[in-house]
Amino acid sequence: MLDPNYIVGFVDGEGCFSITINRNSTMHRPEVRLVFEIELEEDDGPILRSIQEVIDCGNIYRFVYKRFPHWKPHYKYKVSNFKDIYGKVIPFFRKYPLQAKKKFSFEKFCQAAELIKEKKHLTLEGVERIKKIRHKDSLDALDAHVQWGVAKNY
Amino acid sequence: MLDPNYIVGFVDGEGCFSITINRNSTMHRPEVRLVFEIELEEDDGPILRSIQEVIDCGNIYRFVYKRFPHWKPHYKYKVSNFKDIYGKVIPFFRKYPLQAKKKFSFEKFCQAAELIKEKKHLTLEGVERIKKIRHKDSLDALDAHVQWGVAKNY
Repeated sequence: MLDPNYIVGFVDGEGCFSITINRNSTMHRPEVRLVFEIELEEDDGPILRSIQEVIDCGNIYRFVYKRFPHWKPHYKYKVSNFKDIYGKVIPFFRKYPLQAKKKFSFEKFCQAAELIKEKKHLTLEGVERIKKIRHKDSLDALDAHVQWGVAKNY
Repeated sequence: MLDPNYIVGFVDGEGCFSITINRNSTMHRPEVRLVFEIELEEDDGPILRSIQEVIDCGNIYRFVYKRFPHWKPHYKYKVSNFKDIYGKVIPFFRKYPLQAKKKFSFEKFCQAAELIKEKKHLTLEGVERIKKIRHKDSLDALDAHVQWGVAKNY
């Protein structure tokens, strides 16, 4: 098993804590989600499996960027289930704190998680509060061009 | 002080072990150098100082990419003194092994270091052997457009 401090170092460099707000939701209000993810080129896929084992949740996906066909395929480790975010991801990084600037994104992520835990994101007022917390890392425009699929070998 | 495993995780994501061969050397043969470096955006500079403290060698530089003036300034932690590479950087990552694909670059870096230690890089035959070992990470074309300078605050 990987040392937890190794994972913290890796995530400080390569991880992403996002607060996504989907305005095109079929519901009567924007849909708020928290996503923790790490994206790497295909040949670095095995380390994602090792990280997943320690964090003990999430899935690994393989995908290609349609807009950038010359790019290598990528793997993404992704946790978007709120129970896992709140019960596993956040406690892990509370126990083993981030050391680089990513700690600021993580703090905002945790603030949003508390509001979601209290079901505040189900009201327009709550969504507005989360919008204010939200940080630029959440603006993942490339995602719209991603072809998702569960990885065969993972 | 940072946990060494944290540094290994961070370097697996963001570090670079390069074998550089300068064909325009003023000497009668190409000049071979090993460089270990981590480059980050300016606002993530403090973590480089913390890593430098543990590895116990190297310098930190601040620079801008002339070709990409809209990019934020960057900081680079760089070790290029061979004595430090051989006596500090390599032993550190032997003691705390890399876990992701970067371990393959590191192995090539170590092979080249052994040849340099034996002064093989001072012969054309030795340079050819190192060229064969060399990996794609070494091809850092962007470096030619870098404006170097010792960081004021580091």
